[in-house]
Amino acid sequence: MAAEFDLIARCFARAPRRADVPLGIGDDAALLTVPPRCELVVAVDTLVAGVHFLADCAPHAIGHKALAVNLSDLAAMGADPAWALLALTTPDLDEAWAAACMAGFEALARRHDVDLVGGDTTRGPLTITVTALGHVPAGQALRRAGARVGDAIYVSGTVGAAGAALAAQVGGAALPDAAAIAAQARLDYPQPRVALGRALRGLAHAAIDVSDGVAADLGHMLTASGVGATLELAALPLGPGVPDTPQGRLAALVAGDDYELCFAVPPGAALGALATVHGPLTRIGTVEAAAGLRVLGSDGAPVALGRRGYEHHA
Amino acid sequence: MAAEFDLIARCFARAPRRADVPLGIGDDAALLTVPPRCELVVAVDTLVAGVHFLADCAPHAIGHKALAVNLSDLAAMGADPAWALLALTTPDLDEAWAAACMAGFEALARRHDVDLVGGDTTRGPLTITVTALGHVPAGQALRRAGARVGDAIYVSGTVGAAGAALAAQVGGAALPDAAAIAAQARLDYPQPRVALGRALRGLAHAAIDVSDGVAADLGHMLTASGVGATLELAALPLGPGVPDTPQGRLAALVAGDDYELCFAVPPGAALGALATVHGPLTRIGTVEAAAGLRVLGSDGAPVALGRRGYEHHA
Repeated sequence: MAAEFDLIARCFARAPRRADVPLGIGDDAALLTVPPRCELVVAVDTLVAGVHFLADCAPHAIGHKALAVNLSDLAAMGADPAWALLALTTPDLDEAWAAACMAGFEALARRHDVDLVGGDTTRGPLTITVTALGHVPAGQALRRAGARVGDAIYVSGTVGAAGAALAAQVGGAALPDAAAIAAQARLDYPQPRVALGRALRGLAHAAIDVSDGVAADLGHMLTASGVGATLELAALPLGPGVPDTPQGRLAALVAGDDYELCFAVPPGAALGALATVHGPLTRIGTVEAAAGLRVLGSDGAPVALGRRGYEHHA
Repeated sequence: MAAEFDLIARCFARAPRRADVPLGIGDDAALLTVPPRCELVVAVDTLVAGVHFLADCAPHAIGHKALAVNLSDLAAMGADPAWALLALTTPDLDEAWAAACMAGFEALARRHDVDLVGGDTTRGPLTITVTALGHVPAGQALRRAGARVGDAIYVSGTVGAAGAALAAQVGGAALPDAAAIAAQARLDYPQPRVALGRALRGLAHAAIDVSDGVAADLGHMLTASGVGATLELAALPLGPGVPDTPQGRLAALVAGDDYELCFAVPPGAALGALATVHGPLTRIGTVEAAAGLRVLGSDGAPVALGRRGYEHHA
């Protein structure tokens, strides 16, 4: 494995920045110190070339996104991210490609004070698996279960832009230039809502990140909570490149890759101060006792969802 | 992702067995409780079809081995394994295959009281990435660095059998029937030395697991420790299927996939009681001040290693 070790040494090797890493990359395993009275929070997600990103996607964006989708999972738990491990499978030892991928990973890691503490490089079809680790004061994590009847359902930021960019990319749909650039940035460089997730501790009854689309992910939250909801399509905050039409709003509702947070808070919760810091937080619906997700169109009439989210078999 | 969720639900879903899992599979991330005054120990390793196992390898063995190689990393740190996450990329949603793979994973997980706490299934070329997590009393982990001049170098069990099985499989080399079965079992179902690693805490100055071959991995330990060593080829404990010839011993020295532990202990250390519990522990060499690994043949003459380990680009 000398070749492997060279690649790791060049692209992965780094001294730990965080004081809570007694032993980082370079041994059989890393040693980490979880703060007292905290729970460890762990998530893993894989991106596969041709499935989660196009094969010609910039390696810098791939490195960013592989970490971003995992930090988004930690954000949805209200966790403080701390460490990550990276397993990179590449068809060849292209060091320029690997260096660009690691640069994208590292830039996001630094922004969130995350240390890369373990890695594995293997030869094979391009796949990248990141394990993100963080912590949360014991008992304070946000879960999917916990939404209560009467809760207001919010989504952060805007949704649908990544889906619009993907549709333009693979389906050839034309977007206005400015919107196209903004939407593409949302697809390639999603920003995990780490600070917002942390701020929602003690406030939100339940939370989930919008990776598979608002409809699908809100559906998971409602199912886990044993409740249902009505959602108003007209309230959905549309991202760049999403046409403000009934079809556009429906597409934004089921599009994936947004990595915003969807959460349930008590009906009277004042989120104005939070929105000042974390950007728009939009109320899109209300939790109800009857199971299932009901969607109302702009005219107040029920809208049928053919599929509740997009499926890409993973 | 409904298809994905179905697969996960069927193959991954399980209630946590361990009391230190406040939240297992099914949310954005898992919540885990690390015992007080312990360091978290984390490792990640990927197995790729056609690289780390043959495409027609039994899924049960693949599931076993994907966990085993990671538990072996924890064993080399002297850690107590506790949890694992599994990222499985498969070309299709073959549930029988996935169920068999998970059965192999789960059988080994139960044996070591490891809970699967997170998973991701994606469509793509067959790869399986496991993140293993455990803990060790703070400051007591075994590291690669720490071997001292004069230390005795030991290896557990026997080595070379997995390499012999692989050579027979891909190279057509004939093995006697009984040896072939035993060697194949070593290749397909490596047994991580978890209990031995734990027992070496406070005793070994340095340790590493033999995944890339004794020569390569001992080399990593020596480099990390800033020392060298002389190793006696005649002392190498040969596994089933390894011919007791100079060529056979040399092959066993550089063959990978053994997942035994190689460790350095003070020269006078008595390992008899340990060997009674954990099987043969064989002294194979001595740590010296001069950098590099020197190998002596059965006749006491130096043996040249063309390559210090086998390379499979990971």
